[in-house]
Amino acid sequence: MATTSSSEESRLHCCFENWIIQQQNDLRELLQTLKDSPGDDKKFCLVIQKSILHFEQYYEERAALAPANAPFLFAPPWCTSFENSHLWIAGCRPSLAIRLIYTLSGSQIESHLTEYLQGVRRGNLGELTCEQLGLVNDLQCKIYKEEEKLSNKMASMQEDIADDPLALIANEFDSGRVGESNDDVDRALDAHSLALATILKDADKLRLSTLKELLAILTPFQAIDYLIAAKKLHLSMHEWGKRRDQQHGSI
Amino acid sequence: MATTSSSEESRLHCCFENWIIQQQNDLRELLQTLKDSPGDDKKFCLVIQKSILHFEQYYEERAALAPANAPFLFAPPWCTSFENSHLWIAGCRPSLAIRLIYTLSGSQIESHLTEYLQGVRRGNLGELTCEQLGLVNDLQCKIYKEEEKLSNKMASMQEDIADDPLALIANEFDSGRVGESNDDVDRALDAHSLALATILKDADKLRLSTLKELLAILTPFQAIDYLIAAKKLHLSMHEWGKRRDQQHGSI
Repeated sequence: MATTSSSEESRLHCCFENWIIQQQNDLRELLQTLKDSPGDDKKFCLVIQKSILHFEQYYEERAALAPANAPFLFAPPWCTSFENSHLWIAGCRPSLAIRLIYTLSGSQIESHLTEYLQGVRRGNLGELTCEQLGLVNDLQCKIYKEEEKLSNKMASMQEDIADDPLALIANEFDSGRVGESNDDVDRALDAHSLALATILKDADKLRLSTLKELLAILTPFQAIDYLIAAKKLHLSMHEWGKRRDQQHGSI
Repeated sequence: MATTSSSEESRLHCCFENWIIQQQNDLRELLQTLKDSPGDDKKFCLVIQKSILHFEQYYEERAALAPANAPFLFAPPWCTSFENSHLWIAGCRPSLAIRLIYTLSGSQIESHLTEYLQGVRRGNLGELTCEQLGLVNDLQCKIYKEEEKLSNKMASMQEDIADDPLALIANEFDSGRVGESNDDVDRALDAHSLALATILKDADKLRLSTLKELLAILTPFQAIDYLIAAKKLHLSMHEWGKRRDQQHGSI
């Protein structure tokens, strides 16, 4: 059986906490670049690539940690109840990234008139061209299909619990020995954990490819605007969730 | 904002722990009835009805607790990582109940020859008639469709995080104030929690109706056999999960 120590759990926790700090740092750098170098597409591209690289590194670290710890990553004790209740295969649903584009785009169309009248410009996701909107729509359709494939795999795994061998091993025990463990149980649970690790890696790959393809559709200015909003949303959800858990007395 | 106290969280935890104890008691009673009153369909029906009643009471209690606490029920801190990693809308996937019938039926067909040779009979889920198998199959198709409807609703809710108002509120904050809270945030999060509570109740209804319809297809003897196996699996998963979490140092 693949056993892990408590230090391994703290490595998982640490990986997540470092990721939150990384997101905060990236957000600051994106905002600073937007302020200090307006219109400098070269500088914009550099910080965008840096953000993507950090996503890649985070997913690589999770992929390395997953085989021995996958179940922990599906409802991490170090995330808030609100975050955990909205998870899809140990992370956010990839199509959420597309929905965010539509939300920002719709909101910025409204604010453009005000900005024009005030003589300021805060972002330009409200100026997506017809071609860009078409590409975002195509990407959304593609992502939905990929999500469905993984959701179906996950559904099978949830059902597999009632299959041979776990259901039959459980049924063999007398009432007084229900839940006893043995090598067969450990082997079966290890197999389930490894299957979870595999689907987690596939879901992370889809999250990453969605982000990359989405950013490739946008201009550097739009991409920075988008990354800033995405990071603010992620970090806010984490903070808002912590506050609510504190009110519920669970932290 | 709907605030809840820590005593409310302990009520949730208590509700689950009582449910586990109830499952253990029901299992003992089912086994005892099978031993003491072989072939007594009337007695079998009484204990089966009692088990169903307990499921109804548990789901009623969850429905009452859900509105103020829904996010906690989607990845409960009092469940094990292994259980939480296989949850579908705050509980087990209803089609898992059907899969268990097929697993037990397949396994018992194999064991019938041995039992016949030994002159003993342990159960008769291996003797499902063609009509029963047809009904189970019809039920499975129906449940898959119902599950899909709820899965699609859940997918929308996971995406809704990136919609107005949360994504736009988050985007309004300066980097130093990311994650600050206000009444708009609280109202939006309350609305998300209530939506979670509604889908949880719908999923629990589907879990309950699946069980009832499944048991109605079986003879009383088969139904007892099935309930025993289902409870053993549930209780074993909880115990096996606890043992693994202890090995990971999280309990």
